[in-house]
Parts: sequence; C-alpha cells; structure tokens
Amino acid sequence: MMQVPLTVGSMLEHAEKFFSKKQVISQTHDKLQTFTYAEIGQRTRRLMSVLEEIGIQKGDRVGTLAWNHHRHLEIYFAAPGMGAVLHTINIRLSPEHIIYIINHAEDKVLFIDEDVLPLIEAVQDKLTTVKTFIIMTDKSELPESKLKPLFSYEELLHTGDPTYSFASDIDENQPAGMCYTSATTGKPKGVVYSHRGIVLHSFALGLKDSAAISESDVSMAVVPQFHVNAWGTPFACTWFGSTQVMPGPRFTPKRLAEFIEKFNVTITAGVPTIWLGLLRELDQGDYDTSSLRAVLCGGSAAPKGLIQAFEQKYNIPFVHAYGATETTPLVTISRLKSYQEGLSDEEKLAQRAKQGALVPGVEMKVLGNDGEVAWNGKEMGELLLRGPWIASEYYNDDRSESAFSEGWFHTGDVVTVDEEGAIKIVDRTKDLIKSGGEWISSVDLENALMAHESVFEASVIAIPDAEWQERPIACVVLHEGFSNKVGKEELLDFLRPQFATFWIPDDVLFLDEIPKTSVGKFLKRQLRVQVKEHYNIQN
Amino acid sequence: MMQVPLTVGSMLEHAEKFFSKKQVISQTHDKLQTFTYAEIGQRTRRLMSVLEEIGIQKGDRVGTLAWNHHRHLEIYFAAPGMGAVLHTINIRLSPEHIIYIINHAEDKVLFIDEDVLPLIEAVQDKLTTVKTFIIMTDKSELPESKLKPLFSYEELLHTGDPTYSFASDIDENQPAGMCYTSATTGKPKGVVYSHRGIVLHSFALGLKDSAAISESDVSMAVVPQFHVNAWGTPFACTWFGSTQVMPGPRFTPKRLAEFIEKFNVTITAGVPTIWLGLLRELDQGDYDTSSLRAVLCGGSAAPKGLIQAFEQKYNIPFVHAYGATETTPLVTISRLKSYQEGLSDEEKLAQRAKQGALVPGVEMKVLGNDGEVAWNGKEMGELLLRGPWIASEYYNDDRSESAFSEGWFHTGDVVTVDEEGAIKIVDRTKDLIKSGGEWISSVDLENALMAHESVFEASVIAIPDAEWQERPIACVVLHEGFSNKVGKEELLDFLRPQFATFWIPDDVLFLDEIPKTSVGKFLKRQLRVQVKEHYNIQN
Repeated sequence: MMQVPLTVGSMLEHAEKFFSKKQVISQTHDKLQTFTYAEIGQRTRRLMSVLEEIGIQKGDRVGTLAWNHHRHLEIYFAAPGMGAVLHTINIRLSPEHIIYIINHAEDKVLFIDEDVLPLIEAVQDKLTTVKTFIIMTDKSELPESKLKPLFSYEELLHTGDPTYSFASDIDENQPAGMCYTSATTGKPKGVVYSHRGIVLHSFALGLKDSAAISESDVSMAVVPQFHVNAWGTPFACTWFGSTQVMPGPRFTPKRLAEFIEKFNVTITAGVPTIWLGLLRELDQGDYDTSSLRAVLCGGSAAPKGLIQAFEQKYNIPFVHAYGATETTPLVTISRLKSYQEGLSDEEKLAQRAKQGALVPGVEMKVLGNDGEVAWNGKEMGELLLRGPWIASEYYNDDRSESAFSEGWFHTGDVVTVDEEGAIKIVDRTKDLIKSGGEWISSVDLENALMAHESVFEASVIAIPDAEWQERPIACVVLHEGFSNKVGKEELLDFLRPQFATFWIPDDVLFLDEIPKTSVGKFLKRQLRVQVKEHYNIQN
Repeated sequence: MMQVPLTVGSMLEHAEKFFSKKQVISQTHDKLQTFTYAEIGQRTRRLMSVLEEIGIQKGDRVGTLAWNHHRHLEIYFAAPGMGAVLHTINIRLSPEHIIYIINHAEDKVLFIDEDVLPLIEAVQDKLTTVKTFIIMTDKSELPESKLKPLFSYEELLHTGDPTYSFASDIDENQPAGMCYTSATTGKPKGVVYSHRGIVLHSFALGLKDSAAISESDVSMAVVPQFHVNAWGTPFACTWFGSTQVMPGPRFTPKRLAEFIEKFNVTITAGVPTIWLGLLRELDQGDYDTSSLRAVLCGGSAAPKGLIQAFEQKYNIPFVHAYGATETTPLVTISRLKSYQEGLSDEEKLAQRAKQGALVPGVEMKVLGNDGEVAWNGKEMGELLLRGPWIASEYYNDDRSESAFSEGWFHTGDVVTVDEEGAIKIVDRTKDLIKSGGEWISSVDLENALMAHESVFEASVIAIPDAEWQERPIACVVLHEGFSNKVGKEELLDFLRPQFATFWIPDDVLFLDEIPKTSVGKFLKRQLRVQVKEHYNIQN
C-alpha cells in the first residue's frame, strides 16, 4: 500500500473539492456571516502564507484565545496545514494559568478575539515567547491597545496567497495541535495531538454507530473550540461536508435555541451545564427543535432527568458520550444495541445514561483491587485506555509518569462495565468515598439527588470520620422557588430506598452555588475546603 | 499520541468483547450454522495456534480456495492475526493461473473447500511451495484424496488453543492479505494489503455517507471472499458488530432471496450480474425484501435500468460504488448530497447511476490529454488514485511500473467528473473507441442499449477502419422471447436520438452470450477476436 500520511490539511482539501458549495455559518462579535468551504479553503490558504510571512516555522506553536467562529476554524486547518501546531487556550482560566500555558507551550503568535484583548493586555509583560498578536475583528480599524505588534486578521488575510499549498512533507505522527487540561493541583498539563490521531478520531466521529457526522448534518458545536478541539467536530464536520453553525462569543441559551430553529441544526455537542441552560430556555420560549437528531453530551455525566427532559418533553435524542483532554476526546458513546430495542423505557434510559461502549479504534482495561474487573455492572475499577488518539504523556511535564504507565493512560475515572461493554462512571479515583472499608460512589448519590424535583445541582464529598475513616456529605443547590421548602430529612428519605444504609450522607448542606471549574465541572477540591470550614474541621 | 498500530486482529478482538452475542450465520456444503463473535473469536484463536503448529511463520502466505462461510472468515483474522498473510485465491481462474498464483505467492498452506478439491488435486504436482492442505468440511471423515498431507479443519481446530493471543508485534505496514487480479494479457498480478490499509478502509466503510456499516446491520456479502476480501465487508462488519450472513458455496439467486427474507438482511454487496440474477428471482417468486436498506453494486457499472428495477419495483435502495483489486477496493460511492434532494427523479437517477464521489481518505486526479480535466461532467481523462489503501505496486512484478508512477495508481479507467466531484466511468483506456480523432465511450453505448426492453446484455467494441481508424460494433444478447423479433435497425434507431451520428455503431451482432471474466465482467479481448473472425478481419 502507498505510504500516504494522514494529515489534517487533507481533510479541508477534501471539503474544498467535494463540498465546495456547503457552508459555514459564523457568528462573530459584530455580525453573522456565511462562507462556503471553497471560501474557507482559500482563506485558510491565505492564512498559511501569512503565518509563513510572520515567521512561523514548522513545529512552532500558534496560540488562539477565541470563541467558536469561522476564523478559529481557519486557524484549525492553517496551523497544522503548514506544519505548525494549533494551540487552543482556555480563555476562562486564571491569568496566572494563561501566562503559564503560553510560556510553557512557547507560543510564537497569538490570535485573539476582541473581548479577550484586555485579558492579554494585562499579562503581556509576562509572556516570554510571543512575537506577534493578531486580533480577529470585523472592524476596519484596530482597537486602541498596548499589545505590540498587533495586526488585524482580515488585513493580513488580504495580503495572503489564496493558492498557497498545504505542506506536503507532514509526518502523520508530528504534532498538529495541543490543549492544556486543568490539574487538580498545580499548573495545567499540556496534551499534544498528532495529525494521525486527529484524522483517525475524525473517522470515528463519522461512524454510523458513533456520532455519524455526515454531509446532511447541520452541526453546531457548543463545546468551545478551546476545549479539546470542540471535541474534534470542526475537523470531522469539515471533512465530511456538514454545514457548520458556529455560535460565536458569549452565546446565551437563547441564541442556541434560535440558531437551532433558524438553521435547522441536526447535531450539537456540549457539557450538561449547557443543556440544563438550553432546557430552561426551551421551557420558556416556543422553539422548533424538530431538526435535531442528536444532542451529544459529555465532559461530565448527564443526570437521567436531563436525558428524560430532552427526549420525553422535546423529542430530542440525547446521546451520552465520554472522553477527556488526553483522549482527543471521543472514547465511548452510549447507544443501544439492536437487540436491546425490546427493553422497557426505564431499562433503555438506564442503559443510555451510562457512558457507553468503546468506539472502534481504542482499547480499555478496568483495573480493580484484584486486577481486571468482571463485566457485571457492579465491580468498580479505574479505567485505563490505549489507542492511536490517546496521549502518551503530558507535554514536557514531570507529572506524566503517574498518569501514563505501561502503555496505558490511567484516566483517574472509576467505572463499572456491564455485560454489553458499556462503562458507567461511578467516580473519580480521588473522589470515591471510603467508609468502613467499603466504597461509596459520590456520583451515584449526586445523580439520585438530582432526580429529586427540588434539586438543581448536587455534589457529594467525603469528610474525615474517626470511626468510619470517611463519611459522605451532600451539598445541594435547590431550584428557584424551593428554598426553605425542602429540608435535609426529605432528601435523605428520598435516598434511603435506593441505597445501602451506610451510603446515606450524614448531612445535607444547602448552598447558593457549587464551585465549578472553567469548563463547568464541579470543583470538589474547593467544595471540600468550604465544607470543612463549615464543620470547623482542621487538617 | 500513543504509537498503537492499526491491526486486523484488533478488529476481531473488539467484536469478541463488545459484540460477543452477535452472530455469524454460515451456509456450508452440508449445513447452516450459527456462531457468536465470542465463538468465532475462540475458533480464530485456535486456528492461529494451529497455523503456528503446522509451521506457519510471520510473513508466510496462507492460501484459501473457498466460498463465503464462517471458516473463511476465521482465516481472514487468523492469518494476519498471527502475523502471516491471508492469500485468497479466485477459484474461478484457469488451472494454469491458479498454479501460477500459488507458486508466485509461495503459499505454504492451502485451505480448500470440498468442491474445490478436484481442482487442486489436478494441479498438485505443479505446486512448488505448499506443505500442507486443509479441507474445510463438516463431515467427520476426510474424503478420499491424493492430496498429502491433508487435514480436516475441524479436527485441527479441536487441538488448537482457544486462549492463543493475537500477535502483539505487528507493524501496521506489514502485509495482512493479498489478492491477484486478472490482467488483460499475461499472468494475474498480485496486490498486497497492509494491516493499516485494511483498518482505514474499514473505517471508511462505517462512515454514515459511505456504506454506513453498523451494529444494527445484517450484512450478506455476495461478492466472493476471494474477490478483494469481499470488498472488505467481513472486516468492517466484524469490527462494527453487524450480523453476518454468509451464503456459502455455489449459491443461487433463490438462496440469496430466501436468505434476505429469512434473516432480514439489511445490506448486501455484489456485482451487477448477481443483481440481474436476483431481480429475475424476485420477479418469479414472492419474497419479503423490505429489510434491505442498501444493495451495494460495484465491480462494473450498473445499468440505469437495473437501479430503477430495484428501486421502483421493489423499493430496495440500490447504491453504486467503485473500486478495484488495487484499491482494497472502496474508492467512490454514489450518494446524493443533501441539496440534491430537490432534483427530479430522472436527474437523481442520472446522478446515482454515476460511480460517485471519493470516500474520505483517498485522493484522485483525472488526467486528460492536456492535464487535469475540468469538473464539468464532459471532459474525459484517466482516473489516478492515491491513498493509504491504494496499492503502490504489483507483488514482485515487472508490470508495476506502467500502473504505478509518480506516486499515483493509474486505474486505466476513463472517467468524467461533474461539479459535485462525482465520477462517471466512460470506458477503460484500452476500450475507448477512437473514430476520426474523437473518442467514443463504449460504456455509454452499452448502457443505452441495455435500456432497450429487448436487450439483456450489450458490449460495444472497436474494429479497425481504414477511413476512421476505428468504428464501433455492438454485440447484443436479447432477453428470452425477443430473438428474431428485434433487428439491427430497431436498436440503432433507438440509439440515434441519444448520440452524435459518428457514435452510432456500424453494425449490431446478436450473440447467445457475451464472454465474461471469472468475476463476471465482459471479456472484451475475447469478444474482439470473435468479432474479427466474424468479419474475417486479419491482424
């Protein structure tokens, strides 16, 4: 067979040729614009020539601080397309972490959205490697800024060469992109994506039993492009010729609902927090969402109630998936098998609320205390992963060793596996509660609490206990209108029939909000500090 | 990213774990049997240990002379799974060519179906490398045979190790399989398939816009397993957990129709000749074919009438695809784009009768007399292909140079490309008719003739002409009941409104049959000899 490398650039080239008329609909700060893939291709070629012009060389990191829009899409292909590395930076991180990430990745250029400018102006003095700043604006004049040198994206593009070629000397194992993931403690950790990994991952997204991304789709990635490449959807959607709707900066649930109706969105992807917000908007407004064939949900576990609300109330198929920054990210997707169609609605929901079975191309191992666990839906163990789109290390980081050993990525996620090979995340290894020598899943308790009509969010953590080693405490945020109407005992009584007695939390704390990470996951580390303060526990 | 190779064995391992209950339904000479993927996995592991036991080493060629059944499927995974090479041999070739192929590939062992035994017994003395013969029979006793040493597949399997591991030291670029393709003249040419090529090709088969092979499919490959790996479907169907129905030795259209009804087949694949046969059977019988979601047709161009008959008469979606032994084989598939759904039925049929657009992962170039042709559906040129599942040479063959040059496979197929990137095969480079300096497509004339109600098959070839260099002659086989009722002039009158005057054949010859290759394609070389004899042309 021919030795033809798998490259990111070849995916856009395919779209330029075979989907030249298909469109990218992009919301920026100032306007809503539409481009064909033929135009996106030309603009990307111009951008590659601009990158060369400003001195970007093969292997250099190209940083972005941007929302989801067409310019960000163009950089997705231009940076790897000319042999450089796309580095998407999470704009919701603290300034300290952003400084660390940019310097650690040694970004040579930063592409910045208008509203992110102040953030970078404030830290410019601490950036040690950035030579050029490029602002992505539709305005004809540059804004006042102390960033130097600062260029306008569109002006640079105007000078670029629309016939510039994608690099022909790409090694498929060379870096195409990178993304940093928050660590529980310490600095963020960098993950490098190879051309090969991204292309294979895109194939996986197009499989019928996976996300089935196709030409007939209108895809709206709500998950940010700075978050694991928007789960790889911009790459796959471009390659397969889907129409892409990019919701732009600081979108609201209202804008999402409007775009779904206006552009007949068929597939969208995001974290549970986003879908909770969309659900409220759908409840308040009057939107036609009948075009949706799949709402992909990942990032953290979706409560059963959320799945039910989308499916029963709005007839929108809700698809649970699982992955991580270290895994490009798609690892599992929750689909019923053909022979499970006869299950009761309740059994189907229980199955689909799991994270699901591995997509073809990756391998897993679930390690309990005594080696690999049985696939019985009960035994818990840590999920280990292996495959061509699973990271082998953190970028220049001493912390690689503990997470990557003996050829496997140790996810830190504790799961069960059922007979069908579907995993269910029961906890993070560090969040499992050990009480009297037995394990208690904080996630199971949280999901059960969130099924109570009064509970908006719930997070269960451990506090030290002299007798039992650890005991669970439930932290709960109530829906509007329920505060002071629901008490600790009502919630615990709600839990009692569902769990062994020793699982029932010792206390329920009612909070106004639960602290979250920049990507919307519960920040249990901070919650533990709060709770310990509440009980005046020292250690 | 991790350096994890793409291997054939890993696809079956995935099925063993995630689709352990799904089934392979297999027709052999004696019976219809059903196995789960868990069982197929165990049997394949036993077979790998048997192969090791009889002295097969990494890289050795394992020959098969067999129909489509579960044992053949097991060898598909066992040979590459332990590092050897699956060599499927076309049992319809001449004894001379079979001897050449086995000796040229240096097969160490041959797996033989019962009914193929006499063929191999007759040539055994000429086989220079085969050390072991294994007969695939359900009978408890070996048949009388002069083949030595001859073993029973099931008896050997009985001694095998069901826990034997797939080789862990596979380089994804190493050979996994090989297949010989008939040459126009001379000996067959060998094509070697790599693990990487087969896995990537399987991904392509699973894409929503390609064959969309999925867990919910019941797939019946009618295309023989000795013909380009049954177009890769046994690999993809296993990986994605489809139910597989294997129609076994010397199947009839009746068996196909019965199996479609009995097993609720959803997808099936084969050449036009097979579908012509099935159509007649459907016309005669009373079958429920409503489970079928796709009849994949490739190998040679499907006449529009065939597509229409399946879709309009039986409501069976008929999907045109294109590939070759050198291309693993999937290269294009004919699908309407979402924005073409508004075309008239006639326009849709015209579009779908083309070979279609490239599947993601391969690249093409169409070279006319003056470089790349315009994508206007008119300019003709030779189709060149490039990609990770396109061969780079013929195996140990001096003839590689002309077909593989400058990094491209020269298919020898003359095509047009329309605005949508869909190719339409207008001829083989060697079958194009050059008349008065202009090109005439023999394929276009054939398709037009076959649209006439009286015509069962038509083949158009050139004869030398003093004035025009070449002139077309139509060779026609009429449907039963039409002989002596339709004449030359009626058919030519039928063509006249459809083509330029100089395209109209000089004569129409009515034949009882058109000579065909072992895989059912028109054998124009032989037809030309017949026709020249008819006109008494010397050269």
